Amino acid sequence: MRNLKLVVEYDGTDFHGFQRQRQLRTVQGVLEERFAALLGEPIRITGAGRTDAGVHASGQVVNFRTTRPIKTEQIVKALNAALPRDVKVQRCEEVEEAFHARRCASSRTYRYTLVQRPTPSPLLGRFALIVPERLNLSAMQRAGKALVGRHDFRAFQASGSETMTTERTLMRLDCQREGTRIEITAEADSFLYQMVRIIVGAMLQVGRGQLSTSAPVNALNKGERFPKCPPAPACGLSLVKVSYSEGDLPASG
Amino acid sequence: MRNLKLVVEYDGTDFHGFQRQRQLRTVQGVLEERFAALLGEPIRITGAGRTDAGVHASGQVVNFRTTRPIKTEQIVKALNAALPRDVKVQRCEEVEEAFHARRCASSRTYRYTLVQRPTPSPLLGRFALIVPERLNLSAMQRAGKALVGRHDFRAFQASGSETMTTERTLMRLDCQREGTRIEITAEADSFLYQMVRIIVGAMLQVGRGQLSTSAPVNALNKGERFPKCPPAPACGLSLVKVSYSEGDLPASG
Repeated sequence: MRNLKLVVEYDGTDFHGFQRQRQLRTVQGVLEERFAALLGEPIRITGAGRTDAGVHASGQVVNFRTTRPIKTEQIVKALNAALPRDVKVQRCEEVEEAFHARRCASSRTYRYTLVQRPTPSPLLGRFALIVPERLNLSAMQRAGKALVGRHDFRAFQASGSETMTTERTLMRLDCQREGTRIEITAEADSFLYQMVRIIVGAMLQVGRGQLSTSAPVNALNKGERFPKCPPAPACGLSLVKVSYSEGDLPASG
Repeated sequence: MRNLKLVVEYDGTDFHGFQRQRQLRTVQGVLEERFAALLGEPIRITGAGRTDAGVHASGQVVNFRTTRPIKTEQIVKALNAALPRDVKVQRCEEVEEAFHARRCASSRTYRYTLVQRPTPSPLLGRFALIVPERLNLSAMQRAGKALVGRHDFRAFQASGSETMTTERTLMRLDCQREGTRIEITAEADSFLYQMVRIIVGAMLQVGRGQLSTSAPVNALNKGERFPKCPPAPACGLSLVKVSYSEGDLPASG
């Protein structure tokens, strides 16, 4: 069987998240259905990141196995002709049998976009959170930097999630302004459920002066679920990149 | 009666254009319905530009008359709370009785956005035309510049339109690249039906080498409907600004 790796972009607004769910429109569901119809065999895809409802992606990575001998360039064209306009394939390559989009990934990079303006914006608000209040960027940057490293991130995990371990390595948490736009970029080996949005929610409260700059790192150290800090809305978040170390073998599980 | 001027932004994707149409979702229809419900009296609005189905606006201007003594800042908040997320009010001010959003406008500025990339983009393609072929930007710029001035623009008018005169003053037709993004900005006293999209369609053919640089200005001089040049798709177009000369009185009609 051939193993194909694809980079996929989607506008998450009208999807109930990435992962297949019965009778709901999901990215995985739409991809599997269209891929199967096109290739004439059942297709099961694996995604690197299980993005939530409303979260976008410019660099989601998926893989699937097929017996069909179609060329990868033809696959991109044919899939895109069959896919709805809110999800499209950007690249396709054949990879070794052992490649697994989720297990082999060495890191994920998410970007959260804020736009500072007094009124809601139909043009910008689809892919960003509109923030009318002025934000203290340097306080946000300091609060973010303090979280970088290998830590137990259970304080920044949504309730109800089940994972073996809540230790993660946050390699990068940048916060940059360009004009009215603020972009928060987070890279980690992997993220806990809603971890990026809860961190951004905390950074927003720091930016508004509702939390001290050290409050997020204090919560991290205490390891208690971060109090009264709602996750930032899904619309501002996008999975922009999944990295793989060459020659990596998948971890077990 | 108070006369209120509003700047309105909308994502045109799910609207059948600006102008009210029976049983279709239009920008004017949604605004009038929500404004009337909020103010408790029938509201008729006038828009500066009758944008087509799928065309966006960041700077559409409308005006309407009301007897209600609500403050303008409160109007913005209350209207935005009542409006759907694809159309929002940006500003509101009280203006003199004679102000008419369409008749008093001295110029309209539209922007057409192209993005050069090999594959369709769910994130960028909502507000831009994705163009996979490389475009000759300087040829497009020269073709555009040649159209600037006061001319009879009947060559760039969609068939079936009815206007008293097809003379217009095109004050500006710029074409600028930034990275993979090309923005064509057009400003005129007013535009004929689909004029911007037909001009952009012609510039695209010039950029692809399918038309000579002088073909658009030759068509202008001949005054014949521009042959085989489809209007560029609506998704890339946005009404970004409407200008008013202070103290202007509306022209008749």
